[in-house]
Amino acid sequence: MSEGITAARYEERIGRAREALASAGHAALLIGVGPELEWLIGYPARGHERLTLLVIPASGRPALILPRLEVGAAMAAPGPAAGLVELIPWQETEDPIARVTARLGPAGGRLLVSDALKAAFLLRLQAALPAAGWLLATGVLSPLRQVKDAEELALLRAAAGAADRTVEGLLRGRLVGRTEADVAREVRDRLIAEGHDTAEFWIVAGGPASASPHHDASERVIRAGEPLLLDIGGRRLGYCSDITRTAWVSGAEDVGPDDAFRRIHAIVQEAQAAGRAAVRPGVSFASLDRAARDVIEAAGHGPDFFHRLGHGIGLEVHEDPYVVEGNEALLVPGNTFSVEPGVYLEGRYGVRIEDQVRCTESGGESLNQAERGLVVVRGI
Amino acid sequence: MSEGITAARYEERIGRAREALASAGHAALLIGVGPELEWLIGYPARGHERLTLLVIPASGRPALILPRLEVGAAMAAPGPAAGLVELIPWQETEDPIARVTARLGPAGGRLLVSDALKAAFLLRLQAALPAAGWLLATGVLSPLRQVKDAEELALLRAAAGAADRTVEGLLRGRLVGRTEADVAREVRDRLIAEGHDTAEFWIVAGGPASASPHHDASERVIRAGEPLLLDIGGRRLGYCSDITRTAWVSGAEDVGPDDAFRRIHAIVQEAQAAGRAAVRPGVSFASLDRAARDVIEAAGHGPDFFHRLGHGIGLEVHEDPYVVEGNEALLVPGNTFSVEPGVYLEGRYGVRIEDQVRCTESGGESLNQAERGLVVVRGI
Repeated sequence: MSEGITAARYEERIGRAREALASAGHAALLIGVGPELEWLIGYPARGHERLTLLVIPASGRPALILPRLEVGAAMAAPGPAAGLVELIPWQETEDPIARVTARLGPAGGRLLVSDALKAAFLLRLQAALPAAGWLLATGVLSPLRQVKDAEELALLRAAAGAADRTVEGLLRGRLVGRTEADVAREVRDRLIAEGHDTAEFWIVAGGPASASPHHDASERVIRAGEPLLLDIGGRRLGYCSDITRTAWVSGAEDVGPDDAFRRIHAIVQEAQAAGRAAVRPGVSFASLDRAARDVIEAAGHGPDFFHRLGHGIGLEVHEDPYVVEGNEALLVPGNTFSVEPGVYLEGRYGVRIEDQVRCTESGGESLNQAERGLVVVRGI
Repeated sequence: MSEGITAARYEERIGRAREALASAGHAALLIGVGPELEWLIGYPARGHERLTLLVIPASGRPALILPRLEVGAAMAAPGPAAGLVELIPWQETEDPIARVTARLGPAGGRLLVSDALKAAFLLRLQAALPAAGWLLATGVLSPLRQVKDAEELALLRAAAGAADRTVEGLLRGRLVGRTEADVAREVRDRLIAEGHDTAEFWIVAGGPASASPHHDASERVIRAGEPLLLDIGGRRLGYCSDITRTAWVSGAEDVGPDDAFRRIHAIVQEAQAAGRAAVRPGVSFASLDRAARDVIEAAGHGPDFFHRLGHGIGLEVHEDPYVVEGNEALLVPGNTFSVEPGVYLEGRYGVRIEDQVRCTESGGESLNQAERGLVVVRGI
């Protein structure tokens, strides 16, 4: 396929991971099903009860230990197809942990496991390798994964564009009298129609539900004269989309937003712009959070913005770097993350505006382009 | 809601888990996001990077440590709503691990973690509690979860019926000339239309692809004169469906199945019936696998059936008990699991037939009822 990540890129990533591993004196990476596996060899294995584990020793050939049943699926992935890893299939009645220990040999040393490796596997590995030390692979891999390359950026941009069009399309259609769950179905259909492989979340929150940051879609009916918060996303060729907009639904009677709503929407919009404007290489992630939070605090709504400003995005919809107080890491070009302040007035309504933003050589670039100002739709 | 699991049932489950914990002398259960959490308190939390952990000590009140953002979602779940657990929210900039250790106190003892708890959390817990011993909670919880109660059985039965109707509906429609991916979209739509909350897998394998047990749906076009294997399922009110049928698509030209295909279909059908017929309390799971495998081996296709006979089903589509050689555990009434033998002739085609089966007081009962004999459809 012409779009996506090439085998040469995977080879480069494995090489950089091994360099980092060797220079820190670690023994091996043990990577289970999850985004790290996908990032290293392009294999989007599904999590299940059978062990799949990529073993990358500081020296020696990488090996993918996997259920025999999955060999066909693995060979369809770019890394295995290009011969970057040796495949070691295990049979249904074999102990896969023994395959791992055989590959590692008797030595101890520090073994680095992927964040998402299940306790069910980790405790068995620890029991089988009592002399080893155990750390998270994220210490080695996360700094690499946080800097998106050109192919990744193109994929994130395409996913963001699809999410933009999904929100825009939803807001052009009928909303009044429909349940949130019904609109959520339209979210899923539109994301797929826009080329996403999966729709993964669909917060559709009307009226007071918009004051709950992690509300799902319910059977509540959307009415005229209330806000509608949409926080939606999914995955296209492995890479995630995630956008939030909060519109006002005025209905046939044109019941426009009250002044208090206009005010908090303007505050959040200003905070979101301030967060984006603060993006440039060399500043801390905490400082972006602070820039947006200052706007909201100055407007007297500090306690009503009780979550972090954002999260990294890539193969995971939430990944490092987190844009949060206390994260003093400094931005570098290629970091891609959300900027999503909110103000939530419990029992009444809330507003959140979210874009995915890339750090460029000199500033920030939003991958999302859908209108950020207060959009009033009749929804009829 | 009238359908589903009641708070009283969750209270009973927590009580039984604590009894098992105390009688084995363990200190506490530490249950992260996943099916164990859902089974214990009805909270279908999503897996993400923020720690959610249910702490059930052998004595003392259970506590759910969770991100403040998730309090609303958690309170919508039956266990928290009924006050079965104390909610301990942590703020965005706090260390949730400290909340766990504060709750557990300084003592060591054996801590039992859920299978799916991420290494990212487990390694931090291990570092914070160096005196503790670590085991999997599945040793305590799995024997309880393997016996489905009446409400669970009703939910599994409803999900199986929806999957039956999905397969039957698909086989009544047009197939020839469509891509597997297009039929997969129809699978998803039909499962949702049948009342599933999510469609979760959709193996649609035409012709030679049916010889690969874990093939997904591809862009390959389905033709007349070839088999079509459908292995599909999803989730309704938390409980899973999973059915496989292998039909023959004859097309406008009525290109019927060749003798070799008829033969392997008949062998698999006979093996599947033998597996189901062997189900009764007191026999081993291994003996079911053996009963089905004997039929296939006697027909000379032993090497072409290279996976286990089945898996438990409930809140997970694959869970204990596994119906596999070596599992000498004995069936008890309420066990519910798949019976799914297959014969795969690489490069040519394959057949698999799968039902979900419950162990009753005296035998086995299939929850799936769709036709198991060779169905030939024109698909035009």
